[in-house]
Amino acid sequence: MALPRMRPISIKTERLDMSHGAGGRSMTQLISQLFLRRLGNEFLDQGDDGARLPAVGGRLVMATDAHVVSPLFFPGGDIGALSVHGTVNDVAVMGARPRYLAAAFVLEEGFPLADLARIVDSMAAAAQDAGVPVVTGDTKVVEAGKGDGVFITTTGVGELIEGVEVSGANARPGDAVLVSGPIGDHGMAIMAVREDLGLDTPIISDTAALHELVADLVTAVPEVHVLRDPTRGGLAATLNEISHASGVGIVLSEAAIPVRREVAAACELLGLDPLDIACEGRLIVICPGDRADVALAALRANRLGEQAARIGDVIEDDRAFVQMTTAFGGRRMVDWLAGESLPRIC
Amino acid sequence: MALPRMRPISIKTERLDMSHGAGGRSMTQLISQLFLRRLGNEFLDQGDDGARLPAVGGRLVMATDAHVVSPLFFPGGDIGALSVHGTVNDVAVMGARPRYLAAAFVLEEGFPLADLARIVDSMAAAAQDAGVPVVTGDTKVVEAGKGDGVFITTTGVGELIEGVEVSGANARPGDAVLVSGPIGDHGMAIMAVREDLGLDTPIISDTAALHELVADLVTAVPEVHVLRDPTRGGLAATLNEISHASGVGIVLSEAAIPVRREVAAACELLGLDPLDIACEGRLIVICPGDRADVALAALRANRLGEQAARIGDVIEDDRAFVQMTTAFGGRRMVDWLAGESLPRIC
Repeated sequence: MALPRMRPISIKTERLDMSHGAGGRSMTQLISQLFLRRLGNEFLDQGDDGARLPAVGGRLVMATDAHVVSPLFFPGGDIGALSVHGTVNDVAVMGARPRYLAAAFVLEEGFPLADLARIVDSMAAAAQDAGVPVVTGDTKVVEAGKGDGVFITTTGVGELIEGVEVSGANARPGDAVLVSGPIGDHGMAIMAVREDLGLDTPIISDTAALHELVADLVTAVPEVHVLRDPTRGGLAATLNEISHASGVGIVLSEAAIPVRREVAAACELLGLDPLDIACEGRLIVICPGDRADVALAALRANRLGEQAARIGDVIEDDRAFVQMTTAFGGRRMVDWLAGESLPRIC
Repeated sequence: MALPRMRPISIKTERLDMSHGAGGRSMTQLISQLFLRRLGNEFLDQGDDGARLPAVGGRLVMATDAHVVSPLFFPGGDIGALSVHGTVNDVAVMGARPRYLAAAFVLEEGFPLADLARIVDSMAAAAQDAGVPVVTGDTKVVEAGKGDGVFITTTGVGELIEGVEVSGANARPGDAVLVSGPIGDHGMAIMAVREDLGLDTPIISDTAALHELVADLVTAVPEVHVLRDPTRGGLAATLNEISHASGVGIVLSEAAIPVRREVAAACELLGLDPLDIACEGRLIVICPGDRADVALAALRANRLGEQAARIGDVIEDDRAFVQMTTAFGGRRMVDWLAGESLPRIC
């Protein structure tokens, strides 16, 4: 839209103030000069209170995620890219093609516009790479001490892929459990920064958009039963959710679960179990056991699934236990955390 | 979904702690015992990372709003109801029927669960009244001092009403400007609490869902040009946005603009102009001048539009000025605020 008499804002030197969220001219300046320049597309540029979009052919999927990760910048990403990946992945693991994103920012007074611009740049690049545009947005500013820099809530809308029926409640005895790559990279990348571990080999977050990996997989194995991205709570929480929702047991093989050496070392240092640590670019796949090899091949053919592995099996178990055969041949319970140890990981 | 070995939480006595957002068992307890019990419906109860929804026939509309209103509870509403109304209205003023909502909560450690339950109750009632279910959600918890009780981002998806083409860029010389009722109630309800004005007659927020009023209006006058809800920045900011987007001038008549006596008095006390004050349940309608009477009749036939009034006209003006004929017969500019005075009104 045409904009009135506005001075240019200096992104290099200025900081957010309360006027940037109050609905007046400063807010319009911020939206136009910082957000639209980076994220702009035919939908966002409509400049109305929402976006008018083309019709979506199939059944819809909708997912939303508030991102409050701390620190905002971490090896391998930042809250901007993460907020795109997190929601694209939530839509994708429903068995859907992500189509559109909405983004709402809660910003803290005093936050440097340069850092905000860096975050929005990263968000724009992630959305561009994923081919999923941010079509509408909102910005609010809260007083210093009432927020923490930047919170970003993204909401995704997608279109269910026909012939695919995945749900956390669909795991069946005889199914195989696969994971698309090493676990715990994202969570330990964050923890290493927070705890200032000073590792020789820095841990890089695995944050990535998984929708093309999902599309490759369901093309090869449309009869897949469960898709999940193991974020907060990690593999342990996600598999416990699935076992309870499906009323089945799961037995993992410790030796088969891919964990990077540096992630394992950092976990040991902090007394954490890699099974509890969040990923932001890994896919859990549960499919009929006799389709596992085809599924693995499909995953491994994609750059994001090169290290995919079959890590366990679904069994009958009314108690819905998740267990693990350890490297020493024993079997232990894989419980989920009560939840104290890893807040604000995404 | 079936849930594991969980103790019941005491909503009356407990407070949020960091574990409620960490992806483990406490989070699942909170979601199940506080959120699902209140907001549950066939979609939310799916319990997956997102919601599977029926196909939507027409073109889609998507809108998102971060709600950071302070205080959380105010005369006539609270952040829960407001977060439903705000987004339902953003979808409705695009000329669409709101169909589904997503809700993401950023919660502050230490916040009483009883207050959160009250907010979610209010949200559930508003969603039920509006007939627009919350189909998916997310909850995050941040440390005490890194948030402010509760922030709620809602995102709405709707279906464009066929034959209606509204946009802030569609105002044309000769159009009439209507408003559906008295302005400034919401903003002054908030300000009266914040400033502890101790008014004889309390000011009640106008927060309300406008989609049925919009449906009534566009049935009567499908050729309506612009629909807007004058939230942050009030009538002044909204009309300035429209005049710039459309490249037209607007002339208001001060005497015709409905303002409640108590709102006018509170504005005078605080040195504010009612034109700058947010509404959360009022509709601005711009339609061809010769359809204004039919539009007014349609608005007035709905409980939410009983006090609808024609308040001005669209004129040719390359400078895109908004002006007002005052009660004394003069004419003054209606500028929009730079934006300092009324943060966190929604």
